[in-house]
Amino acid sequence: MNFSKLKRVLLGQPLSSHLASHERIPKWKALAVLSSDALSSVAYATEEILIPLAIVGLAALAYSLPVSLAIVALIIIVTISYRQTIDAYPGGSGAYFVVKENLGVRAGLVAGASLMIDYTLTVAVSVAAGVENIASAVPFFQGHKEVLGAAVIVVIMLFNLRGTKESASLFALPTYLFLLSFLILIGAGAWKLLAGEIPPAAPLIHETYPAIPLFLLLRAFSSGCTALTGIEAISDGVSLFQHPAHKNAKTTLVWMSVILVALFLGITTLAHVYGVVPAEQETAVSVLARKVFGDTFLYYALQGSTALILLLAANTAYSDFPRLSSFLAKDRFLPRQLASLGDRLVFSNGILGLSLTAIFLLFVFQGDTHRLIPLYAIGVFLSFTLSQAGMVRHHLRRRGPRWLGSFFFNFLGAFTTLVVLVVVATTKFLAGAWIVILLIPLCVFVFLRIREHYEQVGRELTLSERKPPPRLEAVRHAVIVPISGLHRGVIDALRYALSISHDVRACYVELDPEATERVRGQWRLWAPQVPFIVLPSPYRSVIEPLLEYIDDVEKTTPGEMLTVVIPEFVTAKWWQQMLHNQTAFLIRAALMFRRRRVVTSVRYHLKGDC
Amino acid sequence: MNFSKLKRVLLGQPLSSHLASHERIPKWKALAVLSSDALSSVAYATEEILIPLAIVGLAALAYSLPVSLAIVALIIIVTISYRQTIDAYPGGSGAYFVVKENLGVRAGLVAGASLMIDYTLTVAVSVAAGVENIASAVPFFQGHKEVLGAAVIVVIMLFNLRGTKESASLFALPTYLFLLSFLILIGAGAWKLLAGEIPPAAPLIHETYPAIPLFLLLRAFSSGCTALTGIEAISDGVSLFQHPAHKNAKTTLVWMSVILVALFLGITTLAHVYGVVPAEQETAVSVLARKVFGDTFLYYALQGSTALILLLAANTAYSDFPRLSSFLAKDRFLPRQLASLGDRLVFSNGILGLSLTAIFLLFVFQGDTHRLIPLYAIGVFLSFTLSQAGMVRHHLRRRGPRWLGSFFFNFLGAFTTLVVLVVVATTKFLAGAWIVILLIPLCVFVFLRIREHYEQVGRELTLSERKPPPRLEAVRHAVIVPISGLHRGVIDALRYALSISHDVRACYVELDPEATERVRGQWRLWAPQVPFIVLPSPYRSVIEPLLEYIDDVEKTTPGEMLTVVIPEFVTAKWWQQMLHNQTAFLIRAALMFRRRRVVTSVRYHLKGDC
Repeated sequence: MNFSKLKRVLLGQPLSSHLASHERIPKWKALAVLSSDALSSVAYATEEILIPLAIVGLAALAYSLPVSLAIVALIIIVTISYRQTIDAYPGGSGAYFVVKENLGVRAGLVAGASLMIDYTLTVAVSVAAGVENIASAVPFFQGHKEVLGAAVIVVIMLFNLRGTKESASLFALPTYLFLLSFLILIGAGAWKLLAGEIPPAAPLIHETYPAIPLFLLLRAFSSGCTALTGIEAISDGVSLFQHPAHKNAKTTLVWMSVILVALFLGITTLAHVYGVVPAEQETAVSVLARKVFGDTFLYYALQGSTALILLLAANTAYSDFPRLSSFLAKDRFLPRQLASLGDRLVFSNGILGLSLTAIFLLFVFQGDTHRLIPLYAIGVFLSFTLSQAGMVRHHLRRRGPRWLGSFFFNFLGAFTTLVVLVVVATTKFLAGAWIVILLIPLCVFVFLRIREHYEQVGRELTLSERKPPPRLEAVRHAVIVPISGLHRGVIDALRYALSISHDVRACYVELDPEATERVRGQWRLWAPQVPFIVLPSPYRSVIEPLLEYIDDVEKTTPGEMLTVVIPEFVTAKWWQQMLHNQTAFLIRAALMFRRRRVVTSVRYHLKGDC
Repeated sequence: MNFSKLKRVLLGQPLSSHLASHERIPKWKALAVLSSDALSSVAYATEEILIPLAIVGLAALAYSLPVSLAIVALIIIVTISYRQTIDAYPGGSGAYFVVKENLGVRAGLVAGASLMIDYTLTVAVSVAAGVENIASAVPFFQGHKEVLGAAVIVVIMLFNLRGTKESASLFALPTYLFLLSFLILIGAGAWKLLAGEIPPAAPLIHETYPAIPLFLLLRAFSSGCTALTGIEAISDGVSLFQHPAHKNAKTTLVWMSVILVALFLGITTLAHVYGVVPAEQETAVSVLARKVFGDTFLYYALQGSTALILLLAANTAYSDFPRLSSFLAKDRFLPRQLASLGDRLVFSNGILGLSLTAIFLLFVFQGDTHRLIPLYAIGVFLSFTLSQAGMVRHHLRRRGPRWLGSFFFNFLGAFTTLVVLVVVATTKFLAGAWIVILLIPLCVFVFLRIREHYEQVGRELTLSERKPPPRLEAVRHAVIVPISGLHRGVIDALRYALSISHDVRACYVELDPEATERVRGQWRLWAPQVPFIVLPSPYRSVIEPLLEYIDDVEKTTPGEMLTVVIPEFVTAKWWQQMLHNQTAFLIRAALMFRRRRVVTSVRYHLKGDC
C-alpha cells in the first residue's frame, strides 16, 4: 500500500495551514470550548475538601463552607488578575510567553515545565474522575476503574490521532448539558430543603466549630484549589473570539468565573446541608444527586453529563500539550521535529507520549482521583504565580495609562497564588507533591541541555566563517560490493555500483574453495568488467575479512570516501525478512560510526508467494 | 572503539578453522568428555523413580529395584543398538543424519526437532538438578533455586560466548571426580551394611510386593528412563577418538554403559536398603550420602562433584545445540546465517537463545527437576526410536556381511525404545509431555516453511535461464537531496550526490517563505550548479511534499532508479541522536517498500563537547 494512503487511512487527512487558521467564534461557544477544564473540576473539588476534614470527624465537615468561601475569594482574585493579562496581551498569550518575556527564559521554562506536567495530570485526573462518576452510577465498574480509565484514554487518543475536525458546536453540547444538569440539581436540592420535603442533616451556619489541626484545614483548602485548574484557558485563547476579541474574552472570563463560583458554592453548600459524607465507592456529587433525585432518569443524566464534560476536559489537554511542545521546540528546547504540527506522524508521537504517561499514572495511583490531586495543584499554582509575577514586571516596565490599578491586581494575584502554592507544596508534599517538585527542575534541565546541544551543532555546522569554493567538487570514492554468490539481486547492485563510481570491486569471502570456483566461473560470464576479489577467511568469519579489506582499500586508494553497496532483499512477508540481510545488518552496524563511509542498500523485492 | 576490537574484548578471539579441526583424544579422555550427560543423570534418576512410588505408600518403594532392573535392561539394549550404529557410520553421525539418510527428510526433521528440544531441556534439567544438590548441602539456597539456576546459566552462557578453549583434560576432571566420589559412596554404604554398622531399613529382596496401580509403576519406569539421556553422545562423537576411532568408540560406549549401570544400580539399591524417602528439600542422593558419610568432608565433596558434573552436562548442550543448528541451516531448514559457526556474533545468537529458553523453563517450572523431567524423556526416546529405525532400514537396504545380527539388535532397540516412548508419552502426558508433543510438529512445520522460502527465492533469483548481457550496463538514476538549510553536512551530501549522478536536485520544503529566501541566497553562493527546488507545503508537512516530488521525478525522468541522498548526523552522545535525523528516518520508512528507490545517508560526524 502506498505510504501516504496508509497514513491517511490510519491518521486522517492532513490539516491544511489555511483550514487551521482562526475560525473565530461567538462568546457562548468560546465559553463552552475553553471552560470545560475549569467547570468540570466542580465534579470533584467539593469531595476533595471533605476528605481531609472527615479524618478529624463528621463534625469537622462544617468547615467545608468557610474553606469554600476562601477558595471563591481566590477564584475572584485570579479572575481579576487574568483580566489584566488579557488587557496587556490582547492577542492572547500563555504563561510560557508571558513569563519568558517578562521574567526571562529560565523562568519561562519553569512555567513551561509546570504546564506540561499539568496537561498530563489533567488527562489522568479528569479521566479518573469521569470513571469514578460512571462507577458511582454503574457499580459493575468499581473493581475495574484503572482498566476502564485506560480504555477511555486509548479512545480519546485514537480520536486525536485520527484528527477528527472538532467543531466548536460539538464541544458546546456537553458543557451546556453539564451546566444545565448541575443547575437543576442545585435548584431541586434547594427547593426540597426549603419546601421541607427533606429535613436538613446539618445546619447551614454553625455557631461553634470543632477544634481541628491547622494542617488538615490547610490541606482541605489545598485540595479544594483544584477548582481553579483551567481558569487560565480563556486568556490563552483570546484569538478564538470574535472581534473585539479581548473585550469578549474578558466578559467570557467573568461569566465563567461566576458560573464556576455558583456551581462550586451550590454543590458544597448542598452537600453540607444534605449531610453528604465522602464514601469509598461513590463520589460526593453522586451521593448528593441520589438524595435529591432518587434513582431517577435525572440522576443518570447528571452522572452521564459529568462524565462527558470530564472526558472533554481531558481532551483539551490533547490540543494544549502538543501546542506548548511546539512553542518550546521552536525555541529549540525540545526536539526540532516537534515544532511543526503539520506532519501528523510527528504530532502523533506527542499524543502517544501524553496518553501512555497518563495511563501509567492511572495505574500507579490505581485510578484514584484523591491520590492524583496532590500532584495536580503544584504545577497549576506555580504557573499562575509565575504568570502573574510576569504581569507585575510587565506593568513596572511599561507603566502605561492606569498601570497602577493593573499592577495592584496582578500583584495581589501573584502574592495570593504564591501563598497558595506554598500551602499546597507543604500540605501535600508527602502525599505526592514531591514528585512534581522534583520533576519540574528535571524538565528545565533537559530543556536547557537540548538547547545547548542545538546551539553547539549550529556553531559546528555554520558556513558563515568559510569562503564559498569556486565550484562544488564531487567527492572521489571507491565502491565495494560484498557478495555471497551471483544472482539477480547482485546484478542489480553491481549495475547500481557501476553508475556511481568507476572504481567498483566485488568482494567474496571464501568459506569453501569449491564454491569460490563456481562463483568465479559465473562471474566471467556475467560481470567480467568488475574485479572479483576473493577474501580468505581463516576463522570462517564473513564480516572480519570484509572489514579488513575495507580498511585496506581506504588506506591505499586516494578517494575521500568509500561506499559499500550491499545487495539486500525485501521479502513479501515480515517473518521471511529474518531469513535474509543478516550480513548486511552486521556490515551496517560495523561501519555505522566510521567517518567517511557510506553504506547503501540496493533492495531486490522478492515476489514470494510462499 | 574499533568494532573488531570491541568484539574481541566481549567475545574473545575468533576460532581458526585450523584450530577447530579434530584434536583426537584417547579413550579415557573421550569417555570423560562424552559421558557427562549420561553419567550425571545418575544424580537424579533414582529419586525420579522413588517419587511416583511414594504416592502409593512407603511400602511401594520396594518396586524401585525391579523398575531399575528394567531400566538396566533398556540401557543394555540401547547400548548394543548404538554399537551397530557406530559400525555402520564409523565416521560418527548424529540422529539427524542417520534418520534423514534412511527414513527421509521429514523423519530427519522430526529427529532434529526432538534433539533441539532435548538440548534445551538438558540445560534446564541439569542446572536444576545441580542447584538442588547445592541447596541440599547449603540450605540457604532452598528458597532461591530459580535465581541461582538462572545465575548459573548466565555464567555458562558467558563462558560459551567468550569461547574459552575447552581442553579435554579440563572436562576429564569433574567426570572422574564424580565417578570416584560415587564409587566411594557405594563402597562405603555397602561396607557399613555388611559390617552391620547400620541396620538395613528395608530388606533387599521382598517376598511380597504391595498392590500398586500399573499406571504409577509405568510412571516410575518412565521417570527413571532419564538415566538414558545422553547415551547416544559417543556414537555422535566418533570423530573425536584416536585411531582406530570406531573400535575405540565402541569400547568406550561399553565402558560408559557398565559405569552407568553400576552407579545407577548401586545408588538405587543402597537408597532402598538405607530406607531413603524422597524429600521436598533434599535430593535422594544427598539423604543417602548423609546417612553413609554423616556431615563430613566426603559428603560435601560428593555434593560438589555432583553439582560440577551436572553443570558440565549442561555445558555439552552449548556445543551440541549450535552444531545441530548449523547442520539444519546448511540444509536450509534454519536461517542461513546459522550455518557458519565462524562469526561469533552469529553463533552467539544461538547461545543466547538457548540460555534464555532454559532460564524461562527454570522459572516456569520453579527450578524443580521433577516438573521438568516429564518434558525431557519424550524428545530423547523419539530420537532414539527414529535413529534405531533408521538403522533397521539401513540394514534392510544394504544387507552387508552379518547384517542379520545387526538388524536384529537395531530392531530390538527401535521396538523397545518405541514402547518406552509410548509409555512415557501416556504416563507423562498431562504432567507436561503434551508441550513437547505439540512443539515437535510445530518445529518441523517451521523448518519446512523456511526451506520452502529459500527454494522460492532461489528460483526467483537464478540467472541460469537468462543469457549474460554483452556488458553490464550502469543504471541511470536521478539523485534527490532533501535539505532543510545549508550547512557543512549538506555540503558533504551534495558533493557525494554530484559524484554519483549528473542529475542532482536539492529539495527544500517551504514552511516559511522568509526562510526560503535566506537559504536561496546562501545557495547561490555555495552550490549554484545544483538546482534548488522549493516544494510548497500547504499542510505544513515536511514528508508529504517530498514524497510527491519523488513520485513526480520518477514519472518524468527516464532513469531506472532514483536515489535519495540524505544528510544525516552522527552525534557524539547517544541521547543527542534523538534530536536529529527524524526526517531522514521518516523518508527512509516511507521509501523502504518502494521498488527501485535507493536511500543513502551521508553522515556528518558531530564532535559535540556538549
